[in-house]
Amino acid sequence: MQTALQTAMRAQNPLVVNYANFVTPGFVANGLNEIGASPIMTGAKDEAADLMAVAGALVLNLGTIRASDAGLVDALAAAAKDKPIVLDPVAVGATNYRFEMAQHLLASYPISYIRGNAGEIAKLAGVDAQAKGIDAGTTATSAVELAKAAAAKYHCTVIVSGVVDVIASGDHVAEVSNQTPLLPAVVGSGDLLSSITGAFAALTSDGFAAAQMACATLATAGELAATGLQANAGGTFAAALLDELGVIDAATLDQHAKVQVLS
Amino acid sequence: MQTALQTAMRAQNPLVVNYANFVTPGFVANGLNEIGASPIMTGAKDEAADLMAVAGALVLNLGTIRASDAGLVDALAAAAKDKPIVLDPVAVGATNYRFEMAQHLLASYPISYIRGNAGEIAKLAGVDAQAKGIDAGTTATSAVELAKAAAAKYHCTVIVSGVVDVIASGDHVAEVSNQTPLLPAVVGSGDLLSSITGAFAALTSDGFAAAQMACATLATAGELAATGLQANAGGTFAAALLDELGVIDAATLDQHAKVQVLS
Amino acid sequence: MQTALQTAMRAQNPLVVNYANFVTPGFVANGLNEIGASPIMTGAKDEAADLMAVAGALVLNLGTIRASDAGLVDALAAAAKDKPIVLDPVAVGATNYRFEMAQHLLASYPISYIRGNAGEIAKLAGVDAQAKGIDAGTTATSAVELAKAAAAKYHCTVIVSGVVDVIASGDHVAEVSNQTPLLPAVVGSGDLLSSITGAFAALTSDGFAAAQMACATLATAGELAATGLQANAGGTFAAALLDELGVIDAATLDQHAKVQVLS
Repeated sequence: MQTALQTAMRAQNPLVVNYANFVTPGFVANGLNEIGASPIMTGAKDEAADLMAVAGALVLNLGTIRASDAGLVDALAAAAKDKPIVLDPVAVGATNYRFEMAQHLLASYPISYIRGNAGEIAKLAGVDAQAKGIDAGTTATSAVELAKAAAAKYHCTVIVSGVVDVIASGDHVAEVSNQTPLLPAVVGSGDLLSSITGAFAALTSDGFAAAQMACATLATAGELAATGLQANAGGTFAAALLDELGVIDAATLDQHAKVQVLS
Repeated sequence: MQTALQTAMRAQNPLVVNYANFVTPGFVANGLNEIGASPIMTGAKDEAADLMAVAGALVLNLGTIRASDAGLVDALAAAAKDKPIVLDPVAVGATNYRFEMAQHLLASYPISYIRGNAGEIAKLAGVDAQAKGIDAGTTATSAVELAKAAAAKYHCTVIVSGVVDVIASGDHVAEVSNQTPLLPAVVGSGDLLSSITGAFAALTSDGFAAAQMACATLATAGELAATGLQANAGGTFAAALLDELGVIDAATLDQHAKVQVLS
Repeated sequence: MQTALQTAMRAQNPLVVNYANFVTPGFVANGLNEIGASPIMTGAKDEAADLMAVAGALVLNLGTIRASDAGLVDALAAAAKDKPIVLDPVAVGATNYRFEMAQHLLASYPISYIRGNAGEIAKLAGVDAQAKGIDAGTTATSAVELAKAAAAKYHCTVIVSGVVDVIASGDHVAEVSNQTPLLPAVVGSGDLLSSITGAFAALTSDGFAAAQMACATLATAGELAATGLQANAGGTFAAALLDELGVIDAATLDQHAKVQVLS
């Protein structure tokens, strides 16, 4: 794992432009800030080009997408040009509207990363799954198979986040197994992982490495933040997670991250 | 009080669709998640039907309603059909715009629950009151009379939240008297109560029971979360409240909830 | 410093109307609530007049301004009439769209206060600066010179927030030097300072005094909240900051605030 990328993060402080949902933007912005990136959220297509000109990456989160923002999302994606784009297809299995928006984006722009839970990635990969709202749901297909199928279909790096995060990129697969039940219990932890992926994507063109670092950073910080907390202390945990993200560095990742490259 | 509904909540994990204000959606979503419900917020009318098809309830919060969202709110309410709808008429006494929107919704759709503070319910009930912005204000009419008047006028279950929460439903009235000054000090505690009402409404057609459970769940968790905190520790309290909501169960409610059925 | 204004705040509970960005509105609303003001955020121009009729001040935050909200912002500013208006030109140096919006507002309405970081104020003052996104960036001009230049150009009170906050108003300049690295690490601390400025502006027509109290209130609470926390504990700090804002009073400010009037 390229833990030196965490050192580069604090040195280079890349700007990550987010088309964010309106439920968790403060949590996501604080999380990006803590790891050493610079977050900005936007609501105006007229500033898309100016923002992307100085940005390191673009994150498109479909969590609360509005019809009136379709032009904004397109303007951002078009302005990204050679900058990496991360797609977070929140609840893409729940509504046809979200699925069509995701399909439109994947067909129209060079999306470099997709980060979703098993239900969301299954929907995009065309695999049968039962999901409900923003939850992962269940599927008979393993997360590794889902990630590989979606990565092959969309020619990009795919993160299936869950108890164990699975990354597929080209012929490569990795798992990140740091974990705590408190992380998925916090609304926005998936959104934050997508935006952290954008931050690392701004630092390297190696998608497999960036995705590993993103998953390892969030999951390791989560594991450390959960130490000593009771099982369902989601409120206290959210603050402790930001604290850990604020001090995480290459040495901490070298010591604690559980990343296994499967192929 | 039907405390078994809390057990059912964690077992059934009902999807609660929220037209949320943009000030407190993360807090509300986390609170719903902690009690065992599944939250989703939406900004697109084109997904209203898909969302309501799998939802257990709909919560309409007027806290920051936009003119451009009128179509979305109508689409959600129309798609709710036989699913319960909770209306949170935030600051309905502060602007004519909010009052007209609330009147439109109450006249057009079968709203099952209204949750507001005394000033908001007084405005809807047609009782003189002095309010300012999002605050409760003062009124000469007791909360019990306000709740009964609004419940009779709109043929639904009404919650007047305050130091003591008052519930009126048909001929029945109840009070929930668990309390801490820290709960009203947190912006969004009222929004969260409305959405928790939606979560319990998804589990039973007994509006009186659902409202009691919603008030008891939030107020009991609040009382427990406030234990040992200084009087104005609103920031620490908000996290502790989510922690308590994450572990609340029927046994805790049986032991701590202070619910009195008056009629 | 007019610390009695803090006592007046809790007694008068002024309503502060915010055109807020969607990243940090909950944090800002809670912060206003804790110091004794009453926050409201709005998304509808049709309620601008009703809200401003009972408001003490208006805060316009450009953090995530949408083209579709231009009418709302104009309606609020027009309805403010003799009420003080605070402008927070978030990332005004990052996009031409934001700069033009800020210029339009400054040219069209009697803005009483501008609160920004050095990069933002430099952009408005017409001074060369390097900024990126929401960050302050660097400039060769001192914060005192920036504040004075902007105050002279726009005939208003200007706050350049940073490690030391600088205030310029007419011929007067002051510095507030309470500090902790944790405050700028929290996304939304600048937004909160702008809204707290609005709260004090509602209590006095003395802009120099209101700005000093706003900076002293937030910075002193921040300094006290940081006591005993590790250097990067941004999550824990955000909650502790709200706690301190909830108990801050004239006596605390008299004892701890570090305000120096330079001219």
